[in-house]
Amino acid sequence: MTATSHPSAALAEFAANLRFEDIPASVLRRAEDLLLDCVASILAGATTRPIQAIERYAVAMGPADGGAEVLISRRQTSPLFAAMVNAAAAHVVEQDDVHNGSVFHPAAVVFPPALAVAQALGRSGKELLVAAVAGYEVGIRIGEYLGRSHYKIFHTTGTVGTLAAAVTVGRLLNLNAEQMLHALGSAGTQAAGLWEFLRDAADSKQLHTAKAAADGMTAAYLAKEGFTGARRILEGPQGLAAGMSTDADPARLLDRLGERWALSETSFKYHASCRHTHPAADALQQAMREYKLRDTDIAEVITHVHQGAIDVLGPVVDPKTVHQSKFSMGTVLALIAREGRAGLAEFDAAPGNADVATLRTKVRMELDPEVDAAYPERWIGKVTVRTTDGRVLHARVDEPKGDPGNTLSRDEIEEKALRLGVYAQAASEAEVRDVIKSVWNLENAARVTALLPKR
Amino acid sequence: MTATSHPSAALAEFAANLRFEDIPASVLRRAEDLLLDCVASILAGATTRPIQAIERYAVAMGPADGGAEVLISRRQTSPLFAAMVNAAAAHVVEQDDVHNGSVFHPAAVVFPPALAVAQALGRSGKELLVAAVAGYEVGIRIGEYLGRSHYKIFHTTGTVGTLAAAVTVGRLLNLNAEQMLHALGSAGTQAAGLWEFLRDAADSKQLHTAKAAADGMTAAYLAKEGFTGARRILEGPQGLAAGMSTDADPARLLDRLGERWALSETSFKYHASCRHTHPAADALQQAMREYKLRDTDIAEVITHVHQGAIDVLGPVVDPKTVHQSKFSMGTVLALIAREGRAGLAEFDAAPGNADVATLRTKVRMELDPEVDAAYPERWIGKVTVRTTDGRVLHARVDEPKGDPGNTLSRDEIEEKALRLGVYAQAASEAEVRDVIKSVWNLENAARVTALLPKR
Repeated sequence: MTATSHPSAALAEFAANLRFEDIPASVLRRAEDLLLDCVASILAGATTRPIQAIERYAVAMGPADGGAEVLISRRQTSPLFAAMVNAAAAHVVEQDDVHNGSVFHPAAVVFPPALAVAQALGRSGKELLVAAVAGYEVGIRIGEYLGRSHYKIFHTTGTVGTLAAAVTVGRLLNLNAEQMLHALGSAGTQAAGLWEFLRDAADSKQLHTAKAAADGMTAAYLAKEGFTGARRILEGPQGLAAGMSTDADPARLLDRLGERWALSETSFKYHASCRHTHPAADALQQAMREYKLRDTDIAEVITHVHQGAIDVLGPVVDPKTVHQSKFSMGTVLALIAREGRAGLAEFDAAPGNADVATLRTKVRMELDPEVDAAYPERWIGKVTVRTTDGRVLHARVDEPKGDPGNTLSRDEIEEKALRLGVYAQAASEAEVRDVIKSVWNLENAARVTALLPKR
Repeated sequence: MTATSHPSAALAEFAANLRFEDIPASVLRRAEDLLLDCVASILAGATTRPIQAIERYAVAMGPADGGAEVLISRRQTSPLFAAMVNAAAAHVVEQDDVHNGSVFHPAAVVFPPALAVAQALGRSGKELLVAAVAGYEVGIRIGEYLGRSHYKIFHTTGTVGTLAAAVTVGRLLNLNAEQMLHALGSAGTQAAGLWEFLRDAADSKQLHTAKAAADGMTAAYLAKEGFTGARRILEGPQGLAAGMSTDADPARLLDRLGERWALSETSFKYHASCRHTHPAADALQQAMREYKLRDTDIAEVITHVHQGAIDVLGPVVDPKTVHQSKFSMGTVLALIAREGRAGLAEFDAAPGNADVATLRTKVRMELDPEVDAAYPERWIGKVTVRTTDGRVLHARVDEPKGDPGNTLSRDEIEEKALRLGVYAQAASEAEVRDVIKSVWNLENAARVTALLPKR
């Protein structure tokens, strides 16, 4: 950070000047992992109702060409609409990645615009990787900066996602530091996304990722055209934190920029549910295993959680849809208890299942001071199980499956990608295997091209 | 409001069920006035740098057809991009309308999407008028609801504009009350726009209107496609007011819905500057006239203002551009003192003018308890002028020119439209006269068509 600069400018400078050579190989490999995980999530969400609605809207409003691939339909269109549809699809089955400290799902808002613009402009695989890393590093830090008060009302992936997408696209447009700062300004002033939809199981979560990707792209393209934005959109007296946070911590914005790689802290989702359910799900899974329990042994499950889990999951008291079930702590734990796992297939069968509904009512959340204090840096899982024969059992996991210290191997990532990729018949197994190959070879691609053959 | 409904639902019901026959003729005529004023503002903004940047972006991302007219270039494209570009242009010369109580510029976000969708779908003039009235009535009430705390950080025209646009487009898509509620939900969760850009004279104000129009349209089209939104986006515990206001007053949301016509309370802008400067500008104009002052007689001008004026205009201490000059109380009053008026031509000549700059520094704002208490319902103008020969003079206007009690006649509206319409050579005088005729005959149009001939 130069003497005359401020956090927004320092972030813009970092994003504009990051070089491929600056990024450790392990970070690049992890970026590829996350890209593959994202593409697989997009394919898994292809046939869902809200994504089909957004795709029809994109067909109505967008052009029938433009060099960018809509993965779910294999249409070509302009980057704006490809990013919009793919970003919407990336988040809908709740299998995309999450960064714990910022409670932010970066892949869904970073890779769709990155792919769309790289395809349309013929950028290289290396350029795409640098752009994605820049988007992750800046986005995650802004999420951490806005803090827990922001996340209480605002869906960070929607709000912060807009800035992450702007940085990513800005890199692919070769914005200089000054233009990148304008892109941040234009992105921040578009940042939006309220949690209110959760109460009604409405479709807004998909709109949030779609819009973050699209609006971030708009901000970057406009900056390239000379359109200016606020220079202190993050920290200014009428900026993002002033309007949408009460506990913003400026120290987080530039935290070890270029040394700490926040991308590598990003977790994979193992269960197909809201991340706030995962620590408890892992803990219950452990209890079931350790004490050889069956679902019929369970009289009550108390999950000891952080406040954020209560804020997001609390409103979901009577889940009616597959998507809403993924935000129901009771349903997730019922699936773990009955089926041993909470994957896409288990959720598809959950709504209307009387046994799941009965088990669900036996689960409740309790705020736990230790868990809450560790959050959001660490997501500790703690459950207390009371059995029908009167035992009171405890289980605990310190790092849920998929977190950096308990991560997925490339084999596990490929296995998950194959499972998700064919789930909605949006691609064949052979096609998903080709996607895997393309992603593992991305660094050597002179031009990023469509990932799937035309149908 | 039915027993089971809540404010968001009641607003959606009103918007979906409003009939042409319910609207008084005077309100319809005023809607036509405001439409003409808006189209003229769009034409006046045609050649400005930020609008040209947005138009280039629209060309890059949107289709080359779609039945909707981009007024500034006479291109056809899909309604999304026509609304985006026209809405951006509507606000840039700061001559579009304003509703005092909500501090909201409705025309810029209501008419561009209304025209674009009506043209693309071949709706009638009556349908367009009903849609616009619905957008004004709902939008203005939401703006009043969110209150002064919202406006301190957020640009209400950007945030609330998204909901007003959604209602307007929703009407043209014939959404039922349930779909309209989903449209409100999807619009509210996209609502964005921060004042931070003012400090840098950045271009965000144009992005805000462009995005409000586009995002509201997205919300309405998605609702038609079955995409759902939060049912209590305005009043819910994680909704718009919870996130972006501390003084929201639910009583304002349904205030005399169907009896009070907020559209008719909307003011025309007489000076080509931020509305917060107008009361003081009118008061100074009166003082100059009454005491036969020349600009060289002025030693100091104290403007007695409401807090909102200080919040918005205060950051502008050294205006460098034409647009920023319109947010400089000192510049506006300098032009009034020197030129007798503060129109588009006067502002074009302001930046860099040494006499204007000198006069500017003689103007300061002071918070006035009476003016502040009356705001935002009434915008009182009070100035104290100290002359070089030691006199201390006072002037006051209770209702600035253009307000409902001091409004423009149809002749004055036509005169303003002609002046604005030809200002940027975006249309000839004959073409503007044809636009005027079309607007005055709108009620009888079986189909809304392009307002300008192709070039």
